[in-house]
Amino acid sequence: MEALHSDPLPQVLFLLVAILVTAKIGGYVATRLRIPAVLGELGAGIVMGNAGLFMFGSTLLPEIRDNQYLALMAELGVILLMFEVGVEGTVKQIASVGSSAALSAVLGVAAPFLLGWGVGALLLPESGGMVHVFIGATLCATSVGISARVLQESGATQTPSGRTILGAAVIDDTLGLIILAIVVGLITSETANVWVEAGRVTFQAAAFLGGGLALGLLFSKPLYRLTSKIQVSGMLLTVSLVLCFAFAYGAHLAGLAPIVGAFAAGLILEPEHQTFYAASEGEHHRSLEDLLHPLSALFVPLFFVQTGAKVDLRALLSPEAMMLGLVLTVAAVFGKLACAAGVVDRTIDRWTVALGMIPRGEVGLIFAGIGATLTVGGEPVITPTLYSAIIVMVILTTLIPPLLLPARLRRLKLDTEPPPESGAAPGH
Amino acid sequence: MEALHSDPLPQVLFLLVAILVTAKIGGYVATRLRIPAVLGELGAGIVMGNAGLFMFGSTLLPEIRDNQYLALMAELGVILLMFEVGVEGTVKQIASVGSSAALSAVLGVAAPFLLGWGVGALLLPESGGMVHVFIGATLCATSVGISARVLQESGATQTPSGRTILGAAVIDDTLGLIILAIVVGLITSETANVWVEAGRVTFQAAAFLGGGLALGLLFSKPLYRLTSKIQVSGMLLTVSLVLCFAFAYGAHLAGLAPIVGAFAAGLILEPEHQTFYAASEGEHHRSLEDLLHPLSALFVPLFFVQTGAKVDLRALLSPEAMMLGLVLTVAAVFGKLACAAGVVDRTIDRWTVALGMIPRGEVGLIFAGIGATLTVGGEPVITPTLYSAIIVMVILTTLIPPLLLPARLRRLKLDTEPPPESGAAPGH
Repeated sequence: MEALHSDPLPQVLFLLVAILVTAKIGGYVATRLRIPAVLGELGAGIVMGNAGLFMFGSTLLPEIRDNQYLALMAELGVILLMFEVGVEGTVKQIASVGSSAALSAVLGVAAPFLLGWGVGALLLPESGGMVHVFIGATLCATSVGISARVLQESGATQTPSGRTILGAAVIDDTLGLIILAIVVGLITSETANVWVEAGRVTFQAAAFLGGGLALGLLFSKPLYRLTSKIQVSGMLLTVSLVLCFAFAYGAHLAGLAPIVGAFAAGLILEPEHQTFYAASEGEHHRSLEDLLHPLSALFVPLFFVQTGAKVDLRALLSPEAMMLGLVLTVAAVFGKLACAAGVVDRTIDRWTVALGMIPRGEVGLIFAGIGATLTVGGEPVITPTLYSAIIVMVILTTLIPPLLLPARLRRLKLDTEPPPESGAAPGH
Repeated sequence: MEALHSDPLPQVLFLLVAILVTAKIGGYVATRLRIPAVLGELGAGIVMGNAGLFMFGSTLLPEIRDNQYLALMAELGVILLMFEVGVEGTVKQIASVGSSAALSAVLGVAAPFLLGWGVGALLLPESGGMVHVFIGATLCATSVGISARVLQESGATQTPSGRTILGAAVIDDTLGLIILAIVVGLITSETANVWVEAGRVTFQAAAFLGGGLALGLLFSKPLYRLTSKIQVSGMLLTVSLVLCFAFAYGAHLAGLAPIVGAFAAGLILEPEHQTFYAASEGEHHRSLEDLLHPLSALFVPLFFVQTGAKVDLRALLSPEAMMLGLVLTVAAVFGKLACAAGVVDRTIDRWTVALGMIPRGEVGLIFAGIGATLTVGGEPVITPTLYSAIIVMVILTTLIPPLLLPARLRRLKLDTEPPPESGAAPGH
């Protein structure tokens, strides 16, 4: 009967089938090629998003990148991924790599910013100074989803270097936010005092992260103890998802990315919280990891296939954009290698951290999109050619780390760094 | 960073938190009152959808019923629920109650149709004959989601009467579709020959159900054997979800409700299919039921809370609508009790089947909504008062079965009907 209702459900069902099937085919091909499955999912998305583009001038399945319902489910997918990765760790474990993570994040934002600024000034001298600054800003922010997934596939989220990447990405998101606030403020001159605005953004982000973690650490244990006593099915998962979504919403209110909130929520949940449920549920008890896995199996591929589908390969057709994009990629990659210098703890592999911070993913595109809407002296800050060049940079920085990171992690396992088992159990 | 993007995610996160929290509170209260948790979820929705309505003239959280993203996820929720219920059974088991299910469905559509027609002719003599026919049509279709959930909560989906309800609901959906096609055809006179159209609808539905089940039974086992050999994580769940979504989409193309397709897909999956995965996954193997449970824990409450939120209690404020609604409810309930006469197999409890077929849920509202857009002689077929009366009927028929069905099922367990354990294992 519902068929008579005009509703978006049928198209979503069709797209879910198309995405899940191609994601698994891509994952299978990637596994046979001994590269991470996430690259196969990105590749499946790139193929579907661009198939027919060159022949017919339009994609075969434009809905894969345009369907708003899928886009929302994809966003929930990366939120669930970061929550899952957070659940695997604890606040204490991230704090233990805090100084290296903080220093890596600062260097990994400052270096690409300055390099991007320099590249802009050298190659686009006729553009205004603000354009050069904005190019620097688009190179700053790390898109942690890709690296988190690669770490998860390699079983390395709990190695010291894995934790440093995740911790640095949280700080990186805050720094990127501050830089964007300053740069946009300088261009639009909307805020009376740019520095007051930057201070406000910093304070909000710090207050959310500090306050949220403190409240979470104080109240999450009593919350789990209380809810484990309620005889309603699915409580462990529901309480955990509520915490995840509430923190993601809180991060949004504080101006941060929702995934930062979801990751923080995951960190708060200590493994011992589940013991309350193990006691009350008996043989029906499943660990939170076990319960989250089916959700991420449905949602996470949506994110990576859609990220792939959003890659517009036509950007590669313009030689000018291609050249500028390659130079930006070099600046972006070398800029993030500065993270290695921030790793002060000798048990952390500095090159793993640097590689893990390279992906720009959708964050660079969001920056570029904002730049395309701003004007300086009647000219858009980000011209179409510059936008295409940034797409080239995003494609390359997204694809490089999944190719290099697993090899580095494999070498480490045979080498100096403690294996994930002992890294996950503190004091072991 | 994504916060700078104007997107619907933050509101969806907020609503997910609100719905999951209130659904569990409602479920907890219902459990304490010894009524099914689904009534608690419906109640939570009614409260949230109507709170403040009487005081301020608008709901406190209108987004809970209006947010299109939530609505889509709620539709996926009832699809997953029907798939889950289908997975618990097999085609053979449904076929074994086939004659009773078919006869119950026919009687359970014919009786309410005639009673609704009669009530219309008696109470609204000044309206045209087509209005009376349309009222009959709105009383026909069963909304199986509610009963499926109650059966699941009572562990009774695999009792003979549970299977009869589920099988009858599939046939019921087809019959309702045919009646709607005929009635709408007669009113609009759009189709040259109403009976040709009715035949086309019948053929499409039968071809989908027959062809889909035949293809599924033939190819699902090889499909599972093949995919179990691919070393990509999450394959069992992904293949199963692809089958579920593809059948739901196919049902839509055939003019049926997507939930009918999802249920059929679940029936096709025989328990032995999973043995391929048990062999290849070893200790990491989880049963499909175990994998589906977290998905339904997230999605299913969205459906029932939103169904509750869509109930507009203002319909109860008009004495005329209230009176007409009560009479329609009596016709709807007594009409479906005719299902009992269709139960020819003596091992099936006829009153359980009749109670299970009572809910009209959203299907009646969809019919009424279509009627409100049609006109006969310049007058809408369904006037606002009549629409409110139908809402009253939907509220009451949705709430009655969850109240009565568990008691009947408990009595049966102590009584004649074989318990679900032996019912689920054929030949035992």
